[in-house]
Amino acid sequence: MTHRYPRLLDLRVILVFAGLCAAAIPAPAQTPAPAGDQSIAVRYRDAADRLIGAALADSTAYRRLGVMVDTFGNRLSGSVSLERAIDWVLAQMRTDGLEGVRGEPVMVPHWVRGRESAELIRPRSYSLHLLGLGGSVATPAGGITAPVLVVGSFDELTRRAAKAKGKIVLFDFPFDTTASPFAAYGQAVQYRVRGPSAAARVGAKALLIRSVASRSMQSPHTGVTIYDSTVARIPAAALSVEDAELLHRLQDRGETAVVRLAMEASTLPDAPSRNVVAELRGSERPDEVVVVGGHIDSWDVGQGAMDDGGGAFAAWQAVRLMKQLGLRPRRTVRVVLWTNEENGGRGNLGYRDRYAADLERHVLAIESDNGVFAPLGFGVSGSDSAVALASQIGGLLAGIKAGVVERETQGSEADVEPLVDRGVPGMGLKVDASRYFWYHHSAADTFDKIDAGDMARCVAALAVMAYVVADLPEPLPR
Amino acid sequence: MTHRYPRLLDLRVILVFAGLCAAAIPAPAQTPAPAGDQSIAVRYRDAADRLIGAALADSTAYRRLGVMVDTFGNRLSGSVSLERAIDWVLAQMRTDGLEGVRGEPVMVPHWVRGRESAELIRPRSYSLHLLGLGGSVATPAGGITAPVLVVGSFDELTRRAAKAKGKIVLFDFPFDTTASPFAAYGQAVQYRVRGPSAAARVGAKALLIRSVASRSMQSPHTGVTIYDSTVARIPAAALSVEDAELLHRLQDRGETAVVRLAMEASTLPDAPSRNVVAELRGSERPDEVVVVGGHIDSWDVGQGAMDDGGGAFAAWQAVRLMKQLGLRPRRTVRVVLWTNEENGGRGNLGYRDRYAADLERHVLAIESDNGVFAPLGFGVSGSDSAVALASQIGGLLAGIKAGVVERETQGSEADVEPLVDRGVPGMGLKVDASRYFWYHHSAADTFDKIDAGDMARCVAALAVMAYVVADLPEPLPR
Repeated sequence: MTHRYPRLLDLRVILVFAGLCAAAIPAPAQTPAPAGDQSIAVRYRDAADRLIGAALADSTAYRRLGVMVDTFGNRLSGSVSLERAIDWVLAQMRTDGLEGVRGEPVMVPHWVRGRESAELIRPRSYSLHLLGLGGSVATPAGGITAPVLVVGSFDELTRRAAKAKGKIVLFDFPFDTTASPFAAYGQAVQYRVRGPSAAARVGAKALLIRSVASRSMQSPHTGVTIYDSTVARIPAAALSVEDAELLHRLQDRGETAVVRLAMEASTLPDAPSRNVVAELRGSERPDEVVVVGGHIDSWDVGQGAMDDGGGAFAAWQAVRLMKQLGLRPRRTVRVVLWTNEENGGRGNLGYRDRYAADLERHVLAIESDNGVFAPLGFGVSGSDSAVALASQIGGLLAGIKAGVVERETQGSEADVEPLVDRGVPGMGLKVDASRYFWYHHSAADTFDKIDAGDMARCVAALAVMAYVVADLPEPLPR
Repeated sequence: MTHRYPRLLDLRVILVFAGLCAAAIPAPAQTPAPAGDQSIAVRYRDAADRLIGAALADSTAYRRLGVMVDTFGNRLSGSVSLERAIDWVLAQMRTDGLEGVRGEPVMVPHWVRGRESAELIRPRSYSLHLLGLGGSVATPAGGITAPVLVVGSFDELTRRAAKAKGKIVLFDFPFDTTASPFAAYGQAVQYRVRGPSAAARVGAKALLIRSVASRSMQSPHTGVTIYDSTVARIPAAALSVEDAELLHRLQDRGETAVVRLAMEASTLPDAPSRNVVAELRGSERPDEVVVVGGHIDSWDVGQGAMDDGGGAFAAWQAVRLMKQLGLRPRRTVRVVLWTNEENGGRGNLGYRDRYAADLERHVLAIESDNGVFAPLGFGVSGSDSAVALASQIGGLLAGIKAGVVERETQGSEADVEPLVDRGVPGMGLKVDASRYFWYHHSAADTFDKIDAGDMARCVAALAVMAYVVADLPEPLPR
């Protein structure tokens, strides 16, 4: 996932984002139970229990996730592996008997990493652990060899701007492991997103960052960077936390570290991809839609099992279980596995534009993109009354400890954000994300990090929330 | 460290070792306090407090460790970096004013990794994360391309022996994260040490293991392997835990994984190295010696900061602080930074042989080789009365929670084992090793894993134990 800067290309949002994350937007006071309160708890108890029971008993989604990530590997936009994985998912959805199974075309950015390396030349020879940032330009053919200037923050770069010219600037901004993971990410990711242009502005030849990660075992973490159009585009890569600290220590001891950075990264013409869509059509109001999904694309390292294969397959399984149990709600439930969440958001923008005329009838859009760790509940981007109603539905999930519903304070999930902007209530599945940034965007985002039981509880939470909202007599309040 | 199979070249010991580790050798019953009991607590309270206070206030060892590992990097036997690091340590010891500072020559094995890679060829193309095992032979120039047979244990290999011929065998034996770290290591490391010959015996072309690690982020872990002279030597490497599980899942789904393994490893003629020795000569009985040390060599990945730069420098600092405080004990305290602990043990054997005639006057040999994490106390390889006396000294360390003294149940520390075999009482510094096998023998064994406060407490524990034993009127009972 890349939320925390919901619209990737909206720099304005990115620029204010760290502030937003830190701001403690107060959650609404616990809304007193309205008169009809008992009805949800009573009316949907049986359906919820059936969905929860089926989710906990059926490991299909977990097994399918293993097959997909082991068979196709990671799935960056523009890659053959992404499109093959999409073909495979569509075929499986058809065997599930889901309705309206389709791939909805969208053109996506096509960035290719190519070979890349960073060598410490002085004071001693050493191969640094790095991953180029998504969207980075290449170095010249022979690489860039320059002394390194390490700074801890944008402020420090400003103070030392005169020393940056001709250097490779390294931002060694630590991940605050004492803060909530997403708040800490919101701070640190600024250096990945804005770092290259900040460094270019003071004359740097290339930009390195300390990987945005809450734990490291020499595994660098990639992710998108965004160039400011007003300054030169310089090559940009993430070092492992260990190697960033090494360069910082050398500088602190008065040693000049010289690094040769070589990157072959290239951006090719946009490539065709697809959002994966399948439905369970509503029994009474099929034109009203509850969307539940995750994203099918990933970065080009690891397996994209946590980010976001697990979330995508959990959403798919939620709808599959409704179908299997014969639980067809009044409204349509539509599973959407967005493409290109990681480096462009073209999937979610494409969905918004394709369904622009139908968004009034989109009752809710849920995304699961925080890993399928132990679920806690939902964050709601919507009105107080939507939060209050969702809280009642959350009560059905108390038995699996996934019933906490709160107003979203850290920005909508990336793929539902364009819908939220058009007035559609949004939700994100909240989980125990304490290990999320150990693996995020790294080679360690692999299937073994997924716990089958946790994933099953995520399926249950998504299924109950989507089903009940789709079946309620009245739409979720806007 | 490589203890758990104390004599690397004694296969008999290795073969029975897992059993030994599991055997619960009962600790001696708490010895009733003898008459002179109060004397240690009273007589040495002041010296202990001074040593503890100085250890906690003086971060020289921590800073020197950073300088050494950042300047010279890792330090495999036979490497230039090891010998340069030894030169640097000797020079620093002389500036400390330690006595008898010297490098004592020993010839060490000289294994060189060379380039190495493992590519999954089928069912899809993927670069596996691997590290060759120390001592492995090379593959033929074009590599070895073969189907993989995954087994979970030696027993399973025996059962499926008919399927192993011509294959690359992968042992996917998991690290038992529910057991104590060293007990779990003792089990799993058998596959690293004995795996290649077990696989060769049933006709395998090469051997892969799941890295012996209690947590993984795609970081493979190396370590020594030992060929049985009765079967062919086949190339051997460790995969990351993630990649071992990937190959296992593929096999479980009925897919044949084909891997091309290419390794250029070579064993060169033995190379000269040195044990680093320095002393604080005893005021009354200078010929009686307390040894305290760690090992200066490391594997050829990461920085060898945890294994065992930290332990070695903590021992050095313990003696340095006695010198600085003017605490000269009756007997000589000798810091020894052994070379070649990791792949041969030539340093500890060389020490034993050089001092063969003096071992009767070696009162105690302490090693710190479990990482300088939060210290807990000491494990004693010696008589019940030695354990009882050491427990009294441990009482002086209760204030820093490092005072638990128990009989060693899992084998002596590797570098003191040859002395223990000759009757010298041995000790190992015990620490909170819960993260030790996250980083052990991997690229993630770097300086950032060392906590300055924990390391200082390790220094304090070593200093107090070594000083008091060296100063007691009577030698530690044998």
